[in-house]
Amino acid sequence: MAYFSENDIEKLEHIYKINLINSCSGYKSANLIGTKSNTNIENVAVFSSVTHIGSSPAMFGFFLRPTTVVRNTYENIKATGYYTINHIHESITKDAHHTSAKYNASTSEFNVTDLNSEYKNNFFAPFVKGAPVQIAMKFVEEYNIKANNTILVVGKIIGLYINDNLIEDDGFINLSKAKVAAINGLDGYAIPEHKKRFGYQRPKQ
Amino acid sequence: MAYFSENDIEKLEHIYKINLINSCSGYKSANLIGTKSNTNIENVAVFSSVTHIGSSPAMFGFFLRPTTVVRNTYENIKATGYYTINHIHESITKDAHHTSAKYNASTSEFNVTDLNSEYKNNFFAPFVKGAPVQIAMKFVEEYNIKANNTILVVGKIIGLYINDNLIEDDGFINLSKAKVAAINGLDGYAIPEHKKRFGYQRPKQ
Repeated sequence: MAYFSENDIEKLEHIYKINLINSCSGYKSANLIGTKSNTNIENVAVFSSVTHIGSSPAMFGFFLRPTTVVRNTYENIKATGYYTINHIHESITKDAHHTSAKYNASTSEFNVTDLNSEYKNNFFAPFVKGAPVQIAMKFVEEYNIKANNTILVVGKIIGLYINDNLIEDDGFINLSKAKVAAINGLDGYAIPEHKKRFGYQRPKQ
Repeated sequence: MAYFSENDIEKLEHIYKINLINSCSGYKSANLIGTKSNTNIENVAVFSSVTHIGSSPAMFGFFLRPTTVVRNTYENIKATGYYTINHIHESITKDAHHTSAKYNASTSEFNVTDLNSEYKNNFFAPFVKGAPVQIAMKFVEEYNIKANNTILVVGKIIGLYINDNLIEDDGFINLSKAKVAAINGLDGYAIPEHKKRFGYQRPKQ
């Protein structure tokens, strides 16, 4: 196996390093986070760090760097308290990935891609039209991660829309039926096929 | 689309709720975290919340509940300062998932499954033998997430082992070549096929 020590990693060329380290946590969730400013400018940006942190109450976290392009997302969430999480599926992967380009705050990514916004039930932030799973989120709290100056944003699910045919009898959402993407590294997209459910595990006797 | 309000979600039957909410963040990373107690009892447990939080320094976070089975992992990390992250691949998914069963602290999951431990370069914690990506981690800090009483554990990569044939010229690790798994919900495992890399995005003119 190839081996990289802590020192080896530090010395890697920048692009090689970010590709390597972004790939080595495994597959990542592929989501578009939708927000709107108080001046009604819509924003949508790709995130691969949305993580389940609890089901009751239903809460997700995601990480961002306040000093990069994603500050539009952060500033809108802090200013308005609301955002949406939308699943990236096969037919929008290219446009979804393009939202990582650094546009200024006055440009909506909905205007420079074929992604369309959608509003539902008077929720403040825009959903991504056609996404098979759309989630209305309310900001709860944030943590400044001292180790590397990132921010963990914690939010609560206050509305959940799922294409009907994806939900199985026990609540499991079959993501592969909707061709939901998973992200490998910074820019690799895969469309997983469902293989196997193993059920709840009890100790062997 | 099916719609669940915050109130609907709260009222769902327990199993339905945890399946639904665990599925709706998208695909999750599939990792085995290896630890060892100060009394030399090895532990290995499946986690789906390992998340990249920075490349320089190379840092990952993961979430756990101190009150569940995973406290063995947490207690060992706090007591010793070290752990490993190992990718779950197709041939070990069944055994990997079985590590979610609630064994007591004196039972090593390496003894009740076909998973084998491996030690490298005098690192304290056990790796999972045969995993295509094996990561030596050092505990850095933790955050108590007040919103739902979970803990975010932040660690630094201090050693990284990757099967040689997976690394592309620019540092990208092709996870699909190693048949690395992604997790859907609590117990669904998928083996993604690599589809497309889109590269670094710049604004359209």
